[in-house]
Amino acid sequence: MKIIIDAMGGDNAPLEIVKGALLGMEHWGVEVLLTGDTEAILRALRDCGHDTIPRGMEIVHTTETVEMCDDPSKVFRHKKDTSMGVGLTLLRDGKADALVSAGSTGALLAGATLITKRIRGIRRAAMAPVIPTTGGKAVLIDCGANAECTPEYLMQFAYLGSFYAGRVLGLERPRVGLLNIGAEDSKGTDLQKQTLALLRKAGEEGHLNFIGNIEAKEAIKGGCDVIVTDGFSGNILLKTMEGVGSFAGHALGDIFRKNLLTKLAAAMVMPGLRAFKAQLDPNKVGGTAFIGISRPVIKAHGSSNAEAIDNAIGQARQVAESGIIGQIQENVHLMQLQAE
Amino acid sequence: MKIIIDAMGGDNAPLEIVKGALLGMEHWGVEVLLTGDTEAILRALRDCGHDTIPRGMEIVHTTETVEMCDDPSKVFRHKKDTSMGVGLTLLRDGKADALVSAGSTGALLAGATLITKRIRGIRRAAMAPVIPTTGGKAVLIDCGANAECTPEYLMQFAYLGSFYAGRVLGLERPRVGLLNIGAEDSKGTDLQKQTLALLRKAGEEGHLNFIGNIEAKEAIKGGCDVIVTDGFSGNILLKTMEGVGSFAGHALGDIFRKNLLTKLAAAMVMPGLRAFKAQLDPNKVGGTAFIGISRPVIKAHGSSNAEAIDNAIGQARQVAESGIIGQIQENVHLMQLQAE
Repeated sequence: MKIIIDAMGGDNAPLEIVKGALLGMEHWGVEVLLTGDTEAILRALRDCGHDTIPRGMEIVHTTETVEMCDDPSKVFRHKKDTSMGVGLTLLRDGKADALVSAGSTGALLAGATLITKRIRGIRRAAMAPVIPTTGGKAVLIDCGANAECTPEYLMQFAYLGSFYAGRVLGLERPRVGLLNIGAEDSKGTDLQKQTLALLRKAGEEGHLNFIGNIEAKEAIKGGCDVIVTDGFSGNILLKTMEGVGSFAGHALGDIFRKNLLTKLAAAMVMPGLRAFKAQLDPNKVGGTAFIGISRPVIKAHGSSNAEAIDNAIGQARQVAESGIIGQIQENVHLMQLQAE
Repeated sequence: MKIIIDAMGGDNAPLEIVKGALLGMEHWGVEVLLTGDTEAILRALRDCGHDTIPRGMEIVHTTETVEMCDDPSKVFRHKKDTSMGVGLTLLRDGKADALVSAGSTGALLAGATLITKRIRGIRRAAMAPVIPTTGGKAVLIDCGANAECTPEYLMQFAYLGSFYAGRVLGLERPRVGLLNIGAEDSKGTDLQKQTLALLRKAGEEGHLNFIGNIEAKEAIKGGCDVIVTDGFSGNILLKTMEGVGSFAGHALGDIFRKNLLTKLAAAMVMPGLRAFKAQLDPNKVGGTAFIGISRPVIKAHGSSNAEAIDNAIGQARQVAESGIIGQIQENVHLMQLQAE
């Protein structure tokens, strides 16, 4: 198994990316193909104690980098030799099994769609992070790739998310819920009402384990395994979770720093608090899979450190081994309102 | 100042509502007018140690109650003598200064709109809870009254929320942000893009202190004082906050219950934890104001206890005294794309 890694993407590139690649090779038993400036990568390798390119690692030299200010829809036309674009081309051409990048989300999504291409019949690729819930986790699909959605997109996301929860997270008959502002059929906008009908039909036909509308509060309490929503609402949910996590962290910090006694208390519960924090730490959670692309693409957090890249490589291997892309291809006929 | 209280609305009616009314009278120096079944209210009063109707309290007898299963849009046509409907009629007729109900949100909103009526020129009333942020609080408008919105509705919500933050929360030049999935102008759906242009214009003309698009995470970190959004996304934000709060509560409970040492630690930080929890407790936060209605209407949480009703009465008094309705009427010409 070989994983392509965009060595120049992310706030901490290339050093932390290269470090993460070295960790990932050992940790997951994979080969890696780094795209990026060879000199910079070799320098990073030297900083990690490697004077030569290690066995199982390969470098493909590129001269350009996708910057955060680049227009995602145009960057690959204007910059032909970016670490991200070349990586996605190598992935499309079957030179490796998956790709990991911590670069611009918008550019990676555009590149995955334009270069690596969607699975035939899939209208839009979706971003599907795995979020923590009370006592478990859930796939949130979409979380921001598609601000405007049609009922057909959401129906497809339900299948994609369900396959991901089944194949990658290992859940049997994942419970699929439609994010809404109430449980009743009349709730939400036309988008939710029309999607509800499509998903209910898919549930009745036995293609999905659809449990109906679900409120954000119930979803976070673990009420379903797949949270289906448009990218706008999904992003609000995800970013609110992050915001409240940071809010609670600050509040707890203030509580524990108050005096000597509370500092002592902090020491007593530190292991538990660390484990709780880790659950919400993007570096530990791994990356976000782009589902619906014809090859596995994993977006690592922009601020990824070596540990995050290591985790994203593990996730990329898992997606590549899961057979999810074959499963989507076999079932794509169920997910279309009209033929292509 | 007299506040109408729907004595039959909410999970704990009438006992907790009557208790809360008694607390509120003392606490806020207001008179109260209870609508509901006289016998049931008198029984509740006796349970609170009052054999007669206390001075400053008045009861208007009603024979029906709005149930959670009633269709909000039809209930007031079919049930002419509900505690909620009669209360809203008395409010419209100027018999009191504000109304508090813990009954069905949908029915209260429909009743406020159909019976008490919107302020002339306001397209839709909005629900505007005050949410905790890191180190402060913010008005979230709308949080679920209007799932489908137009740019004009959102522009109006921006003014309504800004006036609320100014008059009721006492903030000078409240910072108004448009909830979006990124800070850049190109982010979001057509709704956000068109609203952004309207709000930017209002900001340039000096009518609003508009700070642009804001992500959910930044909003919760305290990046603005008024979070403007459609009712669908606003509800997702609010319910996600509640869900993560409950999630964190469970996780902390598990951490502190682990062993004797951690239980000791819990005792040491208990005052701080209680204060933190209170910040997120709907009974302490008070109710949600319906803004855009011609008279002050406060929705208390369905599970309100006496303390929550007491807080909602305080909030009702504050809104009634604030002059916000006059301010909206004076400025409504700024908030219209087309004349009525």
